[in-house]
Amino acid sequence: MTERTTADLIDAALQHDFRAVARLISLVEDGHPSAVSILSQLFPRTGSAHVVGLTGAPGSGKSTLTDGLIRHVRSLGDEVGVLAVDPSSPFTGGAILGDRIRMQDHVADPGVYIRSMGSRGHLGGVSEATPKALMILDAIGLPHVFVETVGVGQAEVEIVESADTTIVVVNPGWGDSVQANKAGLMEIGDVFVVNKADREGVDETRRDLEQMLDLGGPWAWRPPILSTVATDGEGTADLWDAVRKHRFFLESTGRMNDMRSARLRHELHRAVVAELLRRAERAAEGDRFVALAAEVDARRLDPWTAARRLLDAAEVRDVSGGRPGTHR
Amino acid sequence: MTERTTADLIDAALQHDFRAVARLISLVEDGHPSAVSILSQLFPRTGSAHVVGLTGAPGSGKSTLTDGLIRHVRSLGDEVGVLAVDPSSPFTGGAILGDRIRMQDHVADPGVYIRSMGSRGHLGGVSEATPKALMILDAIGLPHVFVETVGVGQAEVEIVESADTTIVVVNPGWGDSVQANKAGLMEIGDVFVVNKADREGVDETRRDLEQMLDLGGPWAWRPPILSTVATDGEGTADLWDAVRKHRFFLESTGRMNDMRSARLRHELHRAVVAELLRRAERAAEGDRFVALAAEVDARRLDPWTAARRLLDAAEVRDVSGGRPGTHR
Repeated sequence: MTERTTADLIDAALQHDFRAVARLISLVEDGHPSAVSILSQLFPRTGSAHVVGLTGAPGSGKSTLTDGLIRHVRSLGDEVGVLAVDPSSPFTGGAILGDRIRMQDHVADPGVYIRSMGSRGHLGGVSEATPKALMILDAIGLPHVFVETVGVGQAEVEIVESADTTIVVVNPGWGDSVQANKAGLMEIGDVFVVNKADREGVDETRRDLEQMLDLGGPWAWRPPILSTVATDGEGTADLWDAVRKHRFFLESTGRMNDMRSARLRHELHRAVVAELLRRAERAAEGDRFVALAAEVDARRLDPWTAARRLLDAAEVRDVSGGRPGTHR
Repeated sequence: MTERTTADLIDAALQHDFRAVARLISLVEDGHPSAVSILSQLFPRTGSAHVVGLTGAPGSGKSTLTDGLIRHVRSLGDEVGVLAVDPSSPFTGGAILGDRIRMQDHVADPGVYIRSMGSRGHLGGVSEATPKALMILDAIGLPHVFVETVGVGQAEVEIVESADTTIVVVNPGWGDSVQANKAGLMEIGDVFVVNKADREGVDETRRDLEQMLDLGGPWAWRPPILSTVATDGEGTADLWDAVRKHRFFLESTGRMNDMRSARLRHELHRAVVAELLRRAERAAEGDRFVALAAEVDARRLDPWTAARRLLDAAEVRDVSGGRPGTHR
């Protein structure tokens, strides 16, 4: 990958050539040497996309709902990007992938870019790659980006934190179950949707959600509760209106700017950590590491003391400016 | 927490005072300043416990099976430790906790130490804390430690990697479903159990597993497939025999030693990373970080270039011995 080719890809991506976009995201996701250069060049163009997260239990109909929202947004003439985050699991992997197939309907639409983000690979892989992919979609000028994820773990919750507006999808009867940590959901939802609203128990579920919200107030933005039947598109337009209202709330109160600043600080922090990890990886290939590992293996030295010795010997100072050996 | 008190706790823990053990694990889990000292003192005593991982989908009966294994091991006169790893999730949290309640039966038994490891907190929290808790239980001389986890994510798979012997629990009918990534399970299982074997479809499920194993060979250790009805203890003794046979296989072929060495190398690597992260955290509190964050917020500088500038300015050298500015 020469610089010239990267520049070409970026030019093409800015013209909404989605094959070029896909290539750029792959380079960044794989940690290709050109990744930082790609992100650096695109970064100044970021900051205008509205990121909408959708989360809910497997089977709640998130994908069908996302599909309906894509259709609706397209009917209004806007382009849209979608990141479908797959938490890979030996137990649920297949089902989630199956669920996603219906989004292939939009593959032929040049106004929709859909990307599946896998979480295979190292821990934190998907939660590191997703904000970067979001930045790329933002930079090329897509006005709306959906991030759809199954809310099963910490990584997925972090991804939801990349969203300006988070839609939490539940189903009728959900209120009776002990399966859900409702307080946790109240913390992340900006808009609640009772999907499959043609089934019994919708009113009880709505009431249950309202009661939870009553306990959580006072709210500057009280999350609205909508009902949808995603399979036939019922309620999709109202849902989109609620999302737009939330966006207006964020923008008019200055919260959007605050959130974006906080996220950039977080990204900077993550970049510092990533750079340090890169140096740690190199350290693990060195002779000193091998020698210390042998000491640890013989149980003459514990791993934590060995780690400090390794870093002190390499004269890695405290980043805050301290001298080797002065830290605890 | 004075050094004296830590020493007292360690002495008490070595006498199998489980309240002291609980306190030590909490100190380590919370990253208390005494954590490294505790681990360093206990580390030379590690290396003899047999760690048995149990994983399976929610509802497969893992907890009941663990409960049965505890009873069986106790009837043989051995002490046992149990780490129950809860992947916290807004969608499944409650159910898993409910499942665990039955293990409370053993609370009054002074030969059983049960600990629930939560995965709340930062990403990787539970996968960092679990190997350390295992080391503590190993160091105090418990001959068997069970690690029970729902196999829903990368963190849980990493925890299974801490086990010498991994039991994968499935249910009849599992073979027909598209829910499971069977190849992934074949990779982690040393012993397979078809639990709820009083239900229909046991034979098909066993056949399905055998076929998968046929595809995966040749095996130095071909994972046996057992059937259990955990609720009435049926098959538990045979399951334990299979676990012991696997242990003998590992020990007699030298694989146990190789696995333990590899795990210690991994722990050393993790310790290096953790120590670097600690230094990064301090960096994030400094004036330089704040100044660079303001540049990033104004989009005059991207986070990745800012991170490199921060580390270069602080003269953090490459741990491999390079000079500031000489790295890519």
